Amino acid sequence: MSTSDAGFRAAVEEAEAGYNEGGVPIGACLVSSDGTILGRGHNMRVQKETLENSGRLPAKAYEGATMYTSLSPCDMCTGACIMYKIGRVVIGENKTYVGGEEYLKQRGVEVVVFNDEKCKGLMEKFMCEKPAVWNEDIGEQ
Amino acid sequence: MSTSDAGFRAAVEEAEAGYNEGGVPIGACLVSSDGTILGRGHNMRVQKETLENSGRLPAKAYEGATMYTSLSPCDMCTGACIMYKIGRVVIGENKTYVGGEEYLKQRGVEVVVFNDEKCKGLMEKFMCEKPAVWNEDIGEQ
Repeated sequence: MSTSDAGFRAAVEEAEAGYNEGGVPIGACLVSSDGTILGRGHNMRVQKETLENSGRLPAKAYEGATMYTSLSPCDMCTGACIMYKIGRVVIGENKTYVGGEEYLKQRGVEVVVFNDEKCKGLMEKFMCEKPAVWNEDIGEQ
Repeated sequence: MSTSDAGFRAAVEEAEAGYNEGGVPIGACLVSSDGTILGRGHNMRVQKETLENSGRLPAKAYEGATMYTSLSPCDMCTGACIMYKIGRVVIGENKTYVGGEEYLKQRGVEVVVFNDEKCKGLMEKFMCEKPAVWNEDIGEQ
């Protein structure tokens, strides 16, 4: 696994698109075991929406799949990844926010964290510029 | 808490509506601390949708709220309840399916289980009549 993976690059592109639209800079991308991009998206609750946008796939397709996400997954997306039985979750960074990573591991999902500077920089910029939007999204207000 | 609570009755009515439409007989209802019904719905992933249908409420409204659900919540709905910081989850029955109840407790959510015969009967009837639909919904196929 590396930050040059097509899936990871797509997740970062989605995060940038989210930021450029004035929204939350979080992106995700679901990739099959053979490297095919099954779904991608950006904004909050993005892994859940990426899964829903991937359409209904056979259970086996999810087991072999990797969810690339620019930021540590929120509790709802953590639950979505477990519900769909995603085999692996690759996280761009978990310095600005820590979601349900420990629970993913507890439930047998492989977790990889890159601590990617680009992902971290985007989140820091956003949290500094729009703290109210971020706090509302994570349910702190 | 009792099975005569308006919230629980609404969740069971929703489960019956789901069954009568030929779908999954799972219902849920979100009730505020003062007893107001904030949202209700039926079918799979119903607690998540009930939360999303409740609109955006202040964080405090969720903390005092109770999620009534006819069946033990799936992993995604468990994550949704944690994400929204729901204070209490009341479950009709957990004999036909066990979802994320233990994780809810682990995260400080109060969990009440009624083992209601009506809820159990509806699920048993559905699982017997449409096993393929049920297995697909829980990601077993």
